[in-house]
Parts: sequence; structure tokens; C-alpha cells
Amino acid sequence: MAKAKPATTSRSANQASASEPYIVIIAGGKGERFWPQSRAARPKHLLPVVGTTPLLVQTLDRVRGIAPAKNTFVITSAVQAREVARVCRGLIPAANVVAEPAGRDTAAAVGLAAALVGARDPQGVFAVLPADHVIHDTNAYQRDLRAAFAAAGAADVMVTIGIAPTEPATGFGYIQRGGEWGRVGAGKTAKVVYDVKRFVEKPKADVAASYLASGDYVWNAGMFVWSVRVVEAAFAAHAPELDAGLAKIRAALKKQQVLAAVLKKVYPTLVKISVDYALLEKSANVVMVPSSFDWDDVGAWPAVAKHFRPDAAGNVGRGEVIVEQGGGNLVFAEAGHLVTLLGVDDLVVVHTKDATLVMPKARAQDIKALLAKVALRQDAAKLL
Amino acid sequence: MAKAKPATTSRSANQASASEPYIVIIAGGKGERFWPQSRAARPKHLLPVVGTTPLLVQTLDRVRGIAPAKNTFVITSAVQAREVARVCRGLIPAANVVAEPAGRDTAAAVGLAAALVGARDPQGVFAVLPADHVIHDTNAYQRDLRAAFAAAGAADVMVTIGIAPTEPATGFGYIQRGGEWGRVGAGKTAKVVYDVKRFVEKPKADVAASYLASGDYVWNAGMFVWSVRVVEAAFAAHAPELDAGLAKIRAALKKQQVLAAVLKKVYPTLVKISVDYALLEKSANVVMVPSSFDWDDVGAWPAVAKHFRPDAAGNVGRGEVIVEQGGGNLVFAEAGHLVTLLGVDDLVVVHTKDATLVMPKARAQDIKALLAKVALRQDAAKLL
Repeated sequence: MAKAKPATTSRSANQASASEPYIVIIAGGKGERFWPQSRAARPKHLLPVVGTTPLLVQTLDRVRGIAPAKNTFVITSAVQAREVARVCRGLIPAANVVAEPAGRDTAAAVGLAAALVGARDPQGVFAVLPADHVIHDTNAYQRDLRAAFAAAGAADVMVTIGIAPTEPATGFGYIQRGGEWGRVGAGKTAKVVYDVKRFVEKPKADVAASYLASGDYVWNAGMFVWSVRVVEAAFAAHAPELDAGLAKIRAALKKQQVLAAVLKKVYPTLVKISVDYALLEKSANVVMVPSSFDWDDVGAWPAVAKHFRPDAAGNVGRGEVIVEQGGGNLVFAEAGHLVTLLGVDDLVVVHTKDATLVMPKARAQDIKALLAKVALRQDAAKLL
Repeated sequence: MAKAKPATTSRSANQASASEPYIVIIAGGKGERFWPQSRAARPKHLLPVVGTTPLLVQTLDRVRGIAPAKNTFVITSAVQAREVARVCRGLIPAANVVAEPAGRDTAAAVGLAAALVGARDPQGVFAVLPADHVIHDTNAYQRDLRAAFAAAGAADVMVTIGIAPTEPATGFGYIQRGGEWGRVGAGKTAKVVYDVKRFVEKPKADVAASYLASGDYVWNAGMFVWSVRVVEAAFAAHAPELDAGLAKIRAALKKQQVLAAVLKKVYPTLVKISVDYALLEKSANVVMVPSSFDWDDVGAWPAVAKHFRPDAAGNVGRGEVIVEQGGGNLVFAEAGHLVTLLGVDDLVVVHTKDATLVMPKARAQDIKALLAKVALRQDAAKLL
């Protein structure tokens, strides 16, 4: 597939499309990595892991000004829907919180997003954004997002925002950039947009190091901007089976049928595949806007620490915490409870009302093994 | 002072004294070493640190059969009096729980004990016993205690029960034994009683090792049996100032005045000194019954572990506890709360309703430094 070129490289973000932009925030997650604060029904994006509001609310706050609230959707899971609706109240219309009856991975969610936006505006351009990332520089973030909207409005491309890597991380997919595809915006807000050579899966450490050294790779953070038309064409071309299912959802929305009823019937039948596999790796018309904002996906407890001011010994605490003769600890205590550490270093200690976790920071990736044991308990449903 | 010799070395424990035996249990303690379970008003002896009842109740259970309940007293502190009275209800008469208005160390407590017993029976023989030791072999314990009563009833001696040392502990005082003083009991229950050469303070490690190697030393566990007459003579001879204060308490008891009122007035004026310093180290008529029972003073959290059955990795837990990929941990969780450990070894983790402690077993002796920080908090009174 020949890569589309922008109609013009000088039009500004505001002129990018005749349609209003749309935002679809994907709020999923299993609630494992921030256990015991996170639970299946209360994963990371519903917690103020960093800051004082849930990360989902921070994400909604961050896109305000990009799209009007009525054009902003949140796609979540059935088990989280109630709490997501609660935190979204007053921020976006209640009808814009859409629950997947079953998790069918990101391709289905993107298809649902395209259907939701397409029902409003078949010419619509929308961003798909994760709900649970931490980004402090909202101005830079909005500038980059506007550039992505400009590119997606100007040409039939799938625009991804590439995160500038700061370390040879093995936990993210990477995107290898090609040459300059074009420019969007003008003057100080002008941005170079790059061709994408390929998407690569989470690499091994030595490969990640070579990616970082090359300067040609950025992290794939799951942030995409594209038109309904381009997304639907991609589903038709690369994922026809999934597209057939999505067509039923599109048809139902067109006929103004009750969305929940249709989803309940159709959604569980959809192919379970990531949008990277299903569409992006197979499409030639993918371009990349390099990020200029700070970014952290806060993958697990240890990542939280760097967003707090540590004490002289490098301890970070939230709530009532005392650390005596110890350093580098991350300690969270529920209100009304005092957590004390004596003579320990580099631990994560998280106390909640009904469960407490103690582990070395270095073992955070092994939390699934612990949760497998919690799952064996009679009261597992309450605790997970 | 010449050491008294027993009137007869063959009389049995039951014939030792015409009077009924008395027991006075000293239930003090600051509640620091088992924080956060223990508090100033709820120290170790009020907790089921080992077993299912408070250690004080276990102690009362253990001496049943030695002395009748009406002859069994508990001396405690003002702050603990309410809770001590509660756990003693139904076990001993309420009037037998006596609260010191202020802590004046063990010599004053022994003087008070002698006054309480003397008011009932000037010829009485009584044991002074700590409230918070763990002893499983009640039969051997009672046998040794009866031997001590027999010795104290047969001659004007201060009888201490010496604990056979099992390691070169530096946390206990030691007693160097002399030659055989005499024998008490007959047949299978006969016990050799030894002269005491000297009491020595907590030794350094190399000295403790030499004590252990010599076979001549036993631990001083603060268990004494003596007659009112011998104790009062020792106070008069070696602690006249303290004796003058105690005389006021004795006089008040004789006149059946309200004990609490007298204690409130007199007790805070008493010299603060240990009974070891004040009497035992200065007395020549001290003899020792070597223990034949198991004994553990359970000095701090790590000592608790050996009284529980560990899992395959050496973890000991009480309450809802999961340890994944870790060994040698001691974990206590309050009912209704799950404490989970992942990838940590040899930690003490104690969760209570309002406070949690995490420390390596090896740092248990440093808990005072932590509690000093807790003491700085506004809600310290609630937490300590």
C-alpha cells in the first residue's frame, strides 16, 4: 500500500479537519500491578497512583481543549464500568462511557471507537489514548496531539505518537522511524512527522540497547490518531473477520439501537487481537509524530516513587509513614493507619484496608505469582 | 551473713510450711518490644504472643495447684490495671489485683508483695514470678516451684529458680552456683538445691560463652521464693530507706486502710532499684533450685517464631498471611486483613488495626529508636 502524502504540509492544526476532533480513551487493565490498591474493578487508571485524582481523570483533564467533552469517550470493561462512570461524572456525558461486555484486546476496542465516532461523523478524526499514563507537560502533549490530528486530517494515514526513549526498556514495543513524511503546523508549533518503517515487539535487553543507541527507535505508547475512514479501511483490508463483527455494531448505531444490547451479543464473538498486530504492523500508511512531552506509563509500584519527593534517605511515603534507619523504600498507608519500617531498604510496602503487600522493589515484576496464591483463597473475589 | 542450712533435707514439699503458699505475679512491662501489638496499656503479658490466651493468664493457669486462687496476687501498673483486672476475672479475686501508682522497679514490687502476703500470714512463704514467660512443661515447673517452696519453708533462705542456659545469651543476668546446699523432696521428685556464689549482670558475649562452657552458671529469670520474714529482714538489713517506706504500707494493711490510697501516697516516694541490686546481691543466704522445665522469656518478636510451626520455607504466620518466594519471615495479621510478602526473607511484619511494623528479625533490638519517632506524633498516646 503506497503511503499517502499530506495534501499540504503547512496547514495548522485548527484547520486540519472540517470535523471536530474526537477522543476515545481506552480504560482497561487488570488491576494486578498496583495490587493491593488496584483490584480487578479498580485498576491503575481509577487510582491516584500519582497526583491526587485517578489517572483517568488526569487523562480527561489533559485532553480538555483538544476535543469538546461531548466528543470524548471512555471505553472500559464491564467490571470497571460503574466506577469509571462515577469518576467521569461531570467531565463527559454519561452515555460516552461505554463498557465492553468482555475484553477482546485493543483491535476490537479501536473498532468500537471508530464505530462510536463514525456514528456521529463519518468524516471524523479521533485519537485513541491510554487512560493510565502520567504526563505532566500538558502544553507539549496537546501540541503533539494537535500535530497528530493535523496529519490524520490532511492525509489517509494512521498517526502514532512515538515516545522518545530514555532507557533501553524491554517492557515496551518500539517503532522504527523512516524519513521525514512531512510537516504540520507552522512557526514555533511546526512538527516534523516521520514515516514508520516497522513496529517491533518488546525486545531483549541487548536489542533494546541497540535501538536506543541508533536514535531511530521510539516507544510505542498506544497513542494513535486517525480518521474513521482510514481505520475502517484498514479493518476491511487486514482484519476482515473482525470487520464483519464490527459492521454489526456500526449498523446498530446507525439505527440508534441500544448499544449495550448489541455489544452484549456481538462483542464476545470478536477476534481477540491487538491493534498493533491486526492493523498497524500490516499497514503501509503509518506515520509517527515524535513526542516532546514527559511520559511515564508507571508500569508497577517502583515507578511511582520518582513522582514523589523523597526524604533524605530516598524514602517515599504517602499517608502516615515512619521509616527509621532505612532508605529507598516506597510506602503507602491507608488513612488512619500508621505504617512503620525499621532497618529495611528498597522495599515496597502498600497497606490498604483489607490487604498489605511487602516486597523488594526489584521483585515488583513477580507480583503475578503472589496474586496466583491470593486467587486460591475463598475470599479472592473480594481481594483481587 | 552466715548461710542458713535447711532444718531437714528430707521433708517433702507438702510439709515444707504449715502455712499455705502464696504466689505474687509481677505484671509490668512497657509494651515496647512487641509493638505494634503491645502498647503501654497492653504489654506482652496481656497478649497471646504465644498460645491463645494472654501470657498472664497462662502464668495464672500454670501456678494453679501450687497456691489457691485466694492466695494469688498480681501486681501491675496503673495504666495496665483495668485490662489486667479484666483478664484475671474469674481466675483470682478482684482485690488480689494490685496496681502500683508509679513504677518503682522490682525491689519496691517485692516489698509490696511481702506486705500483701504478710498481712494475711506473717509466717507466709511466697513466690514472686514474672507474668510474661513462656513455659510449656507445667509439671516440671510446678515440681521445681514446690522444691523452692520446700527450701524457703525449711530454712531462712532466699530461693531463686535458676534457668539452665541453652546459649551464651547476653540479655540475661547470670547466677553462679556454689556447692550443694541441701536436698528437698524425696524419691523421684527430690531436688538438689545449690548455694549461690554470686549474681552477675548481663555479660558481654565472650564472658557469656565462658559462663556457658563452665557449667556453673544459670540464668536469673526473676523467679524467687521466700518467706515474708526473710524478705522483710533483708529489706531492713540492706535497704533501710526502702524498708521505711514499705513499713507505712505494712502498717496501713494491718489497720485495714484502703490500700490504693496508701500506695498513692507512699509508692512514688520509694527508692527505684531492682531487687537483684537491693537485696539478692547483698545477701549471703541465697540458694538456687535448678530448673528442669523449658523456658523462654520471649524477649522480642523473633523469639515468637520458634513457638509456631513454620511452613516449608521457615515462615511463621498468624492470621491471614501469604508468603511467596520468601523464607524465615514472621508475619502477624489482625483478623480480616490479608498480609502478603513477596520475595523477602527473615522479616518481621506485624499488622494491627491502626499500625503496621516491618523490620528484619535482626533489627528487633532497635525498635526503641522507631518508637521514639512514633512518640513525636500527635496521636502518639493512641499508638504507644
